[in-house]
Amino acid sequence: MLDAAIAELVHASFSNQGAMASLGAFIVNLDQGTCELRAPFAPSLSQQHGYFHGGVVGMLADSAGGYSANTLLMPEREVLTAEYKINMLAPAQGEMLIARGKVVRAGRSLVVASVEVSCLRGAEEKSCALAQMTLFVIDRRD
Amino acid sequence: MLDAAIAELVHASFSNQGAMASLGAFIVNLDQGTCELRAPFAPSLSQQHGYFHGGVVGMLADSAGGYSANTLLMPEREVLTAEYKINMLAPAQGEMLIARGKVVRAGRSLVVASVEVSCLRGAEEKSCALAQMTLFVIDRRD
Amino acid sequence: MLDAAIAELVHASFSNQGAMASLGAFIVNLDQGTCELRAPFAPSLSQQHGYFHGGVVGMLADSAGGYSANTLLMPEREVLTAEYKINMLAPAQGEMLIARGKVVRAGRSLVVASVEVSCLRGAEEKSCALAQMTLFVIDRRD
Amino acid sequence: MLDAAIAELVHASFSNQGAMASLGAFIVNLDQGTCELRAPFAPSLSQQHGYFHGGVVGMLADSAGGYSANTLLMPEREVLTAEYKINMLAPAQGEMLIARGKVVRAGRSLVVASVEVSCLRGAEEKSCALAQMTLFVIDRRD
Repeated sequence: MLDAAIAELVHASFSNQGAMASLGAFIVNLDQGTCELRAPFAPSLSQQHGYFHGGVVGMLADSAGGYSANTLLMPEREVLTAEYKINMLAPAQGEMLIARGKVVRAGRSLVVASVEVSCLRGAEEKSCALAQMTLFVIDRRD
Repeated sequence: MLDAAIAELVHASFSNQGAMASLGAFIVNLDQGTCELRAPFAPSLSQQHGYFHGGVVGMLADSAGGYSANTLLMPEREVLTAEYKINMLAPAQGEMLIARGKVVRAGRSLVVASVEVSCLRGAEEKSCALAQMTLFVIDRRD
Repeated sequence: MLDAAIAELVHASFSNQGAMASLGAFIVNLDQGTCELRAPFAPSLSQQHGYFHGGVVGMLADSAGGYSANTLLMPEREVLTAEYKINMLAPAQGEMLIARGKVVRAGRSLVVASVEVSCLRGAEEKSCALAQMTLFVIDRRD
Repeated sequence: MLDAAIAELVHASFSNQGAMASLGAFIVNLDQGTCELRAPFAPSLSQQHGYFHGGVVGMLADSAGGYSANTLLMPEREVLTAEYKINMLAPAQGEMLIARGKVVRAGRSLVVASVEVSCLRGAEEKSCALAQMTLFVIDRRD
């Protein structure tokens, strides 16, 4: 189980991301090396056909991957995104976007994370994207 | 120079993206195989240190790449993003985020685009990200 | 279990890849949507520190991903690699390189595959790379 | 122009890569932040249709990107490949494969490079792949 003090730091950092608030995103699950984020659909998050915009999908994935790493690094250190790659697997159509990040390899300077993104339509959850990212470890500034 | 009817279709598609409106993003330049988008900084686009969120950078890059392809395909066809990869080169700090997309290779089914993202700080423009993406060509729905 | 005729086609295609023969690579496992390849270490596959070259790691991953897709598409169709992205997780040091490809999403025109690469050192298998790739479906030429 | 002592170190490191010798690859051009490699076609480098194997294309690109970074870092430091992403733009068909690496951003710990790969067919050179990579800076071991 994740240390409560670290969970608090992750939540505090997340709250400071205006971009996550704009998405209406929230943290659903945090554990050692994992992070699940969700964002409800809103017209402000759409592309031209009314689904979640691919950029929004990437954005939630980016954050989920980053915070999955931070659970292993805080309080002393945290990560910056060096790069990510995301494949769209299906239209991101549904009421809720879900991104589940997982650390694949935690090195001293670099962390690699994998993120699965899915959409909830009614009771059904459908995979819609897969991301792989490289995070760069830095000392944490308060 | 880009055909005016195609430019109009690109603008219409862009206007239908709620996510682009949320960013306050606008089209600055369109030509055959290129597209420049800009978005002014707002706290709603920030990460925890007050710069543009990496996901926002990816989002603007994704759109710039996609519309650079659409200039070559519309009105009959258009693209969906199959995947993109983005490297962050420097903190995305500044008053304005700029994404310049360029088609690298336009195949019948797949288009590859490259996108350079930079930030304006006062008069200075500084490169902050580089993306490479694969777009999938579909028939356009009205 | 994979149809024997399809397995035969995969083996035949693999045998026609001079590059796989140069690696000394062979097929260890084939199933519906999965493919495991192996290549024993040789000085001809090394980088400057005597480990498997990162390009060799990418090469075996590329093939494992492609053939995992072919198990689902042959005999009528097969894939070409549109793009791949690979993260090196640890030095590729050991007697045997192993790449396990798995189809993540099989669309009509595009297939997304994920590939885990590891190294055998004695009895120990250690993860050394993770790849994510996009494959383009074509009609098969004989 | 590149310092002769650094050029010598790059050549020495390249010579220690058995994998580059297997490709028959050689250095054609080295400058500050750039590196051009070439490899002549051989059946041992082919995929099933007789073109250069996609993995070979990735391998030459990987090395060209890495050595473009080393020109800026040697003699004190050098790079390891953290990750790369490569888009195939056209079949890699021709007598000679050419990879031109260029440093896009040289940070203290991470270097981002871009690599264009092309094929020579007679007098004509045709672009066949585009790669974007992240390199990790380490102290050089002798």
